[in-house]
Amino acid sequence: MSENYDDPIWLAVFKEAEAAAQAEPLLASFLHMTVLRHDTLEDVLAFHLSSKLSSPVMDARALMELFREALAADPVIGQKMRADIVACYDRDPACEGYSIPLLYFKGFHAIQSQRVTHWLWQQGRQTLALFLQNRISEVTGADIHPAARIGQGVMLDHGTGVVVGETAVIGDNVSILHGVTLGGSGKERGDRHPKIGDGVLIGTGAAILGNIHVGECAKVGAGSVVLDDVPPHSTVAGVPAKVVGSPGPGTPGLDMDQRV
Amino acid sequence: MSENYDDPIWLAVFKEAEAAAQAEPLLASFLHMTVLRHDTLEDVLAFHLSSKLSSPVMDARALMELFREALAADPVIGQKMRADIVACYDRDPACEGYSIPLLYFKGFHAIQSQRVTHWLWQQGRQTLALFLQNRISEVTGADIHPAARIGQGVMLDHGTGVVVGETAVIGDNVSILHGVTLGGSGKERGDRHPKIGDGVLIGTGAAILGNIHVGECAKVGAGSVVLDDVPPHSTVAGVPAKVVGSPGPGTPGLDMDQRV
Amino acid sequence: MSENYDDPIWLAVFKEAEAAAQAEPLLASFLHMTVLRHDTLEDVLAFHLSSKLSSPVMDARALMELFREALAADPVIGQKMRADIVACYDRDPACEGYSIPLLYFKGFHAIQSQRVTHWLWQQGRQTLALFLQNRISEVTGADIHPAARIGQGVMLDHGTGVVVGETAVIGDNVSILHGVTLGGSGKERGDRHPKIGDGVLIGTGAAILGNIHVGECAKVGAGSVVLDDVPPHSTVAGVPAKVVGSPGPGTPGLDMDQRV
Amino acid sequence: MSENYDDPIWLAVFKEAEAAAQAEPLLASFLHMTVLRHDTLEDVLAFHLSSKLSSPVMDARALMELFREALAADPVIGQKMRADIVACYDRDPACEGYSIPLLYFKGFHAIQSQRVTHWLWQQGRQTLALFLQNRISEVTGADIHPAARIGQGVMLDHGTGVVVGETAVIGDNVSILHGVTLGGSGKERGDRHPKIGDGVLIGTGAAILGNIHVGECAKVGAGSVVLDDVPPHSTVAGVPAKVVGSPGPGTPGLDMDQRV
Amino acid sequence: MSENYDDPIWLAVFKEAEAAAQAEPLLASFLHMTVLRHDTLEDVLAFHLSSKLSSPVMDARALMELFREALAADPVIGQKMRADIVACYDRDPACEGYSIPLLYFKGFHAIQSQRVTHWLWQQGRQTLALFLQNRISEVTGADIHPAARIGQGVMLDHGTGVVVGETAVIGDNVSILHGVTLGGSGKERGDRHPKIGDGVLIGTGAAILGNIHVGECAKVGAGSVVLDDVPPHSTVAGVPAKVVGSPGPGTPGLDMDQRV
Amino acid sequence: MSENYDDPIWLAVFKEAEAAAQAEPLLASFLHMTVLRHDTLEDVLAFHLSSKLSSPVMDARALMELFREALAADPVIGQKMRADIVACYDRDPACEGYSIPLLYFKGFHAIQSQRVTHWLWQQGRQTLALFLQNRISEVTGADIHPAARIGQGVMLDHGTGVVVGETAVIGDNVSILHGVTLGGSGKERGDRHPKIGDGVLIGTGAAILGNIHVGECAKVGAGSVVLDDVPPHSTVAGVPAKVVGSPGPGTPGLDMDQRV
Repeated sequence: MSENYDDPIWLAVFKEAEAAAQAEPLLASFLHMTVLRHDTLEDVLAFHLSSKLSSPVMDARALMELFREALAADPVIGQKMRADIVACYDRDPACEGYSIPLLYFKGFHAIQSQRVTHWLWQQGRQTLALFLQNRISEVTGADIHPAARIGQGVMLDHGTGVVVGETAVIGDNVSILHGVTLGGSGKERGDRHPKIGDGVLIGTGAAILGNIHVGECAKVGAGSVVLDDVPPHSTVAGVPAKVVGSPGPGTPGLDMDQRV
Repeated sequence: MSENYDDPIWLAVFKEAEAAAQAEPLLASFLHMTVLRHDTLEDVLAFHLSSKLSSPVMDARALMELFREALAADPVIGQKMRADIVACYDRDPACEGYSIPLLYFKGFHAIQSQRVTHWLWQQGRQTLALFLQNRISEVTGADIHPAARIGQGVMLDHGTGVVVGETAVIGDNVSILHGVTLGGSGKERGDRHPKIGDGVLIGTGAAILGNIHVGECAKVGAGSVVLDDVPPHSTVAGVPAKVVGSPGPGTPGLDMDQRV
Repeated sequence: MSENYDDPIWLAVFKEAEAAAQAEPLLASFLHMTVLRHDTLEDVLAFHLSSKLSSPVMDARALMELFREALAADPVIGQKMRADIVACYDRDPACEGYSIPLLYFKGFHAIQSQRVTHWLWQQGRQTLALFLQNRISEVTGADIHPAARIGQGVMLDHGTGVVVGETAVIGDNVSILHGVTLGGSGKERGDRHPKIGDGVLIGTGAAILGNIHVGECAKVGAGSVVLDDVPPHSTVAGVPAKVVGSPGPGTPGLDMDQRV
Repeated sequence: MSENYDDPIWLAVFKEAEAAAQAEPLLASFLHMTVLRHDTLEDVLAFHLSSKLSSPVMDARALMELFREALAADPVIGQKMRADIVACYDRDPACEGYSIPLLYFKGFHAIQSQRVTHWLWQQGRQTLALFLQNRISEVTGADIHPAARIGQGVMLDHGTGVVVGETAVIGDNVSILHGVTLGGSGKERGDRHPKIGDGVLIGTGAAILGNIHVGECAKVGAGSVVLDDVPPHSTVAGVPAKVVGSPGPGTPGLDMDQRV
Repeated sequence: MSENYDDPIWLAVFKEAEAAAQAEPLLASFLHMTVLRHDTLEDVLAFHLSSKLSSPVMDARALMELFREALAADPVIGQKMRADIVACYDRDPACEGYSIPLLYFKGFHAIQSQRVTHWLWQQGRQTLALFLQNRISEVTGADIHPAARIGQGVMLDHGTGVVVGETAVIGDNVSILHGVTLGGSGKERGDRHPKIGDGVLIGTGAAILGNIHVGECAKVGAGSVVLDDVPPHSTVAGVPAKVVGSPGPGTPGLDMDQRV
Repeated sequence: MSENYDDPIWLAVFKEAEAAAQAEPLLASFLHMTVLRHDTLEDVLAFHLSSKLSSPVMDARALMELFREALAADPVIGQKMRADIVACYDRDPACEGYSIPLLYFKGFHAIQSQRVTHWLWQQGRQTLALFLQNRISEVTGADIHPAARIGQGVMLDHGTGVVVGETAVIGDNVSILHGVTLGGSGKERGDRHPKIGDGVLIGTGAAILGNIHVGECAKVGAGSVVLDDVPPHSTVAGVPAKVVGSPGPGTPGLDMDQRV
């Protein structure tokens, strides 16, 4: 590692990986290949995601180069990645290091990969973006359309069963549990998926359907089916979902209290 | 490609793949190996599914041959595949080509693979069918019993978390969103899973349990838990689900309006 | 196989695999490599899980050795495995042999793998446990924290979308359908996940959130969101879940009647 | 296996493989996948060679199909293969079964693969033939130009280090030890490599250079460098090679006596 | 491809690969992945050699990066590669394109790989150089010590069985056939291997042993064992080798006439 | 590593690997997986050879277990391995550590693998031995019959092109260069291959043919073709080989002076 003192997240990830490689012989090989021989967090991410997404018909080298190209072309992807790492570390009591989401969280991998498919989509490379969406979905269980727009500091916890549609928008500091759907409705093209405000928490298994708004700092209860706009700072729950209260003064997306 | 003018779906898939290989160097390798060097849609499907389902203990060559054998023995599998491609193209606004579901939609892959396990099951090759069900479930997240009967023009959107039981029957022109369960109940053998009529739409996360009938052109709301028969042309929703209205004169399975 | 007359489950698995290899040439290779050349059920499990969990960055040999080490160090893992095999055989009408869950059920694979991560966790090998949790989650769709405690005779049916948190406890003879969450709430550390009593049945898609107790022989309806303690021998359902009756005199976890 | 009583070689190979799979658990997987699930010697060869020649950039399925295509288009390849199997069995004291050269002899694999590259060359598919020549050479150590013409009943013993040039011709019942060169000389195009008559034996490490003729039933001593025509039924040896005697009345290519 | 008009070899390779991908569907996948999606000959070489040298314990991505690093750090490697391509094209009558040696000649791959191990050796990275020497030797059959110095315009024809020792030096425009040894003698360290002058031709199977000089434009006959200095413009042959004549006014390394 | 002070070779190998992993990030992954996480030289050898010899049809795990079984059953294999490591270290000036032959020398790998095939042969497992002989020959270029008997302290330098027949015997402290043949002659079964005495040196490309004896401490010159017994302490050379002198008072197999 070239010492990169301007990137504290990278320093932390590197030190954690170094300690883990020392303590756990079975992981030393993986950690050297994936983390310790690299110089930046971007290189680690490109290597790690290409390990996960390569297949008998898509060479890991080609994927790694693609991820590097995207990360170099759009530095915001790397900035958001760092914010997402911090988000997982701060919000998930079971996450005891910065390297943990980077290396081991499917939901984190799904979001970072989608940021690359999003960049491809913007470049007019739709087919490659769809190819990767398929592969990401196979590996992580999260199916996020390349065109969806995702803020920073977003935590996709576990990720399995998550579906995010083409025209969905997710704000900053949002937390989304597994099994959540930001879905469209009907077969018309155009803007048809939910818009999620900053600081929102969406509980496990909730389905939010249609071009509706979930206001900032709202909380959507687990298992809810949301068909109408959700006011800011409100809590909704039920099938169909109704306002059942308020999450209080905090930010649900940061506080992670799914209970309503 | 031998020009096969009798198969417009194949012609469209071929042309789309040709254009994509031209436009996207990173996919050219995949598209040549998987599509462009073949002569029929059946050969493409056999190759593509064997890429996805092979593993350290199941050779891709053996799987490809099995898929070819099934597709040759039962031409209906190929016919239904074409109807399913058209279904995805017509119903999913994010699907902009006939090659897209064939190559990139997990739900599509799960159904086509199940049609082969179904053929195996009918041939008395239960163990191989179960081996493949397991592998399909690992790759697509959709766990469909080989004995289940599935019509044509069926769209399994996203597919993650879908479970379809042994004695379930799915009619024609049905659309099933992710996270849907067509489950049994109890541990008795015999006919114990739902029967889904033609034209039905089942919203995300809905659970339909037991040997009950969902009438033709009914709509099941997202997140519903259905424990009783659903009348034709009705809309049900809730936990447990109740009739909440009618989907109107159209065919819900084609119109894709999940909202209730 | 050295004849191991003290292990009737192993004898049954061996005979079933032998018959299947004879009847199904396409599986003969897999069955010989995975089952027939081994001497104990533990060796079969170690080989089979290492086939499933190995990856471009984690060698199958290293994983196999790890599984063997764990199974040798803690014989209870093997005992519980046998009880889980019997549980699947007894409760799942679609399961027609002892070898079927061992070889082909994702939920079974997820539990057995977690038992190894649990052993690692207890040994202070947290990072390796998290590495494996990630990989198990990718393959099976079930994301079970290594620290969670799981009894014996547990059936995780299908497994896709299941999430079980760090401080969750699952009793004996419990059946959990796919899409079930035993989740925490909030970002505080400490005991924060559900405790599931013996004999409980949890229906598909149910979310049980927080450090609450589900009493023995209770039944949780499909799609329920459970936020409060559930009394023993009661049935709860709905969003949020309420007591709606009693499952009667039997053991719901064994009777598998999801309907409420 | 469909019983194919017209093909005694295939019957012998099948029975030997069946016995070996029974006796040797570690080979059962390989033998089932490679031999026992097939119906013809041609299918076995196509599968086995594609196992050996596939690589990260050339799919085993595509190679298997190519070998099948060639074997179907030119049945002489299969006939010669059978004669080569018999040749190895008859001439090599260490070869105790018909399946042994088919499955385990590099020199045999090199010749059979070259027969396919030869067919490709005749079809005008030069580049693919060269691609395969390279791969065959990497795996077997024998570098035989696709244009070279090779008779039947030819044994390439061990094969390592063998080089056979573009315009070389090898007759029937020839035996060639490892390290033998049938080379050209100079950089002019045109007919420039040796012609080897029927029944010839070429000892290990011999180099035969230029468009010269080795007469039928001649013997070329180990380590010889042959720059001139060799009369029929003569023995040559030395650097450069000279006639040192006669091999006697037998056929050197069948008798395998390298000593001069 | 970014049009790179300053590199006629790259232009030729690209056009040849493009035509081959068009003409040969089975190679289209390989050619796109290996050649057509790249921008420089260096990138093609790095990709191609990493395909060939990767293994279960050495990731192809890591190797590709290493080759790129070496090719960027020492541009002479790329210059010599181009000279070697031209050498093969000019001297080998069976070589009908510039892409042929680059893609399909083992001897070419061995030299180019050695140039990278040589760079590593000079950087003090001995162990990695030895790791790669082993792998190159397994794949190509040519075992060339990383410390050996090799000129440009060198053709290693076929390459199998070639051994080149630590202190050997090979001049420019040298041609070396397969099975040639540039060996040491004795177990003392220090300068102990042959020095080959410019324009030399070494015939197949020749062994040149000890710290001796082969003068410029000399020819060493096939199968010779050379233990003493060879005068410039002379021809040696035999075991042990003696001067047998003169190769005439030309350059043996270019004329490729192995006959003596 | 459990400190194993009774095995100085293992200690040296471990320390060298540890230093190399530290100094060379690209090898750290390989060295951890192959060396550093193991406890004995036998485990390293079993892992390393199974990496090299596994293939699409032979699982690395099964091979590793086989090698371990052999090494445990016959401890002499491990003792001879250590003597061979020392032999390479002492005799090859280019070998600067005990780990170098173990990890990187093809000839060393070929001998150690043959010791396992020899054990299999003695156990009556001929087919598996032949399967492995083929694979060893593909990877190392050395084709050594499982029945051949090989002493200790043997160095097979480079190994490419070496052939050793079924009834050959190699004594202790022998050195054999690449391209050497210990061959039979004729097609009769029975004792038909050379017997090589202790301390012999066989130069590159030499062919020793028939059931003849090479006396102890003899030297066979490079490129020789030996058809008659070689007296002890004599030097033979030429085609055919004749006594040309004496190697002097030392042991040619240790002194490594190929020159005659």
